[in-house]
Amino acid sequence: MTATTETMTDLYPSRLTRPGEIIERQHPTVWGTDDDGPFDAAALEAHSERGFTILPDFITPGEVTQYSAELERLASDESLQGDPRVVREKVSGEVRSIFEVTRISEQIEALSRDPRLLDRARQLLGSDVYLHQTRVNYMPGYKGTGFYWHSDFETWHAEDGMPAPRAVSCSIALTPNYPYNGGLMVMPGSHRSYVPCVGETPENYHQDSLKEQKIGVPSEEAITELAWKYGVDQFTGPAGSALWFDCNIMHGSGNNITPFPRSNIFLVFNSVENTLAEPYAAPAPRPTRIADRDFTPLR
Amino acid sequence: MTATTETMTDLYPSRLTRPGEIIERQHPTVWGTDDDGPFDAAALEAHSERGFTILPDFITPGEVTQYSAELERLASDESLQGDPRVVREKVSGEVRSIFEVTRISEQIEALSRDPRLLDRARQLLGSDVYLHQTRVNYMPGYKGTGFYWHSDFETWHAEDGMPAPRAVSCSIALTPNYPYNGGLMVMPGSHRSYVPCVGETPENYHQDSLKEQKIGVPSEEAITELAWKYGVDQFTGPAGSALWFDCNIMHGSGNNITPFPRSNIFLVFNSVENTLAEPYAAPAPRPTRIADRDFTPLR
Repeated sequence: MTATTETMTDLYPSRLTRPGEIIERQHPTVWGTDDDGPFDAAALEAHSERGFTILPDFITPGEVTQYSAELERLASDESLQGDPRVVREKVSGEVRSIFEVTRISEQIEALSRDPRLLDRARQLLGSDVYLHQTRVNYMPGYKGTGFYWHSDFETWHAEDGMPAPRAVSCSIALTPNYPYNGGLMVMPGSHRSYVPCVGETPENYHQDSLKEQKIGVPSEEAITELAWKYGVDQFTGPAGSALWFDCNIMHGSGNNITPFPRSNIFLVFNSVENTLAEPYAAPAPRPTRIADRDFTPLR
Repeated sequence: MTATTETMTDLYPSRLTRPGEIIERQHPTVWGTDDDGPFDAAALEAHSERGFTILPDFITPGEVTQYSAELERLASDESLQGDPRVVREKVSGEVRSIFEVTRISEQIEALSRDPRLLDRARQLLGSDVYLHQTRVNYMPGYKGTGFYWHSDFETWHAEDGMPAPRAVSCSIALTPNYPYNGGLMVMPGSHRSYVPCVGETPENYHQDSLKEQKIGVPSEEAITELAWKYGVDQFTGPAGSALWFDCNIMHGSGNNITPFPRSNIFLVFNSVENTLAEPYAAPAPRPTRIADRDFTPLR
């Protein structure tokens, strides 16, 4: 495919030289039906409308304890010292995320294939699925800095070559999400709007962007437009709650000045009919620890 | 009074050379009775227990519009350029606060004597009152940075010479306070605990401390202890809501990455039986624009 053809056929252009109009998404959000899995028709309809679904009690209190211990073990695992899959806070040096965690932790690998997850991911995406990205996130009390507003799909499309928004993320809270300890904010319905971003992607940009994103970030004008159109909702709930959210929903988080930490398990399922091609707007694909290219269906 | 006597009689020591124990407050929170004003007995009891009271619809929508226009006028008032009463954001340079605002704005001066405010302030403090500090606060969308946890009384005692915690603040919201746009967080009940802070007060410290406070800030250990003991609550509500809060309640705010700005009118009433003396732990009193020394009772 030549550069010209690509430009002509790219439904989701980004990293532009000048601001582009917000694009109405062409692809569906929910690809399966209520016959395909645990979500009933009303739940699928709501997910399609809002772009996310919160499921309280998604895992049991016993599992919360088990996975919390696993996260603690991983954060202090000396064999992961200097491992590029471990991302640390810019200022404090504390562990912020561990990527490709299903290849590091047997427990989390098993969880990713648990029917509670796999059946829902397959149903939402209407096909077999594989894991595009997995990680565990630690937001310590006091020191947790947030993420500015962004769409994951914008990055996955531009930098990883994901063709269409046919991926879904599942975030499982291992600590309570209060309204005030830096939890995820989403704009309900914003997954229907694709916001092209301005700025050419630098080489090896992922080395900085995972700590603090500066390119692939929507303009304040676009965020303001979406916020007034869609409003803002927060992912709050007890430990064990899950948030399923569409890859194109606009989301972000503030900082955390409370002593209450937040941690979660974060798994991104992509359809096997939507596997990665060449990046749409970056010099080279990102490392597979961030955007996997093993498309073997999960079983 | 010699330094030795001061140390012996100061019930609220702070700016210490080493961390001190949290001190149980000796003075009451509510000094008046239900016969003295608009709060009924149950409301006074709740205020005494929690250290704050939220009153929705405290001013009318018409007044919200009126005072919002007044704040806009003040922020763009060219005669206030370079005025030390105007505090700007460290990074963006936008107006963050205007102090001594009742001496600048006739409208806000009149509001401070409105019976809705004055009668409540007198009732809570059980005496005539005067204005210790007044200001309007602007927290723009995106650029608003928060305030770390602190007790106002710790500063007013240490730097301004306020003898006892017999002052109350009234914050009137001119914009909606959502849980996610950087609104005030309080720890209900924490006004009963006085947290001595570590660090000697530098000269002219107020020049930095109003933008970002580094001394007179409780330790993370103290904040953690209080947060687990008392929990955290947020001041949320529509424009026109008022928050009355005790001068010693532990409070703070996160940043604001949403486009939704926040602004408020902030008035501190002090009892005329609690007027300022020499600072308890600072080389010199702060300027009167921050801590007024005109103790004439409000009428």
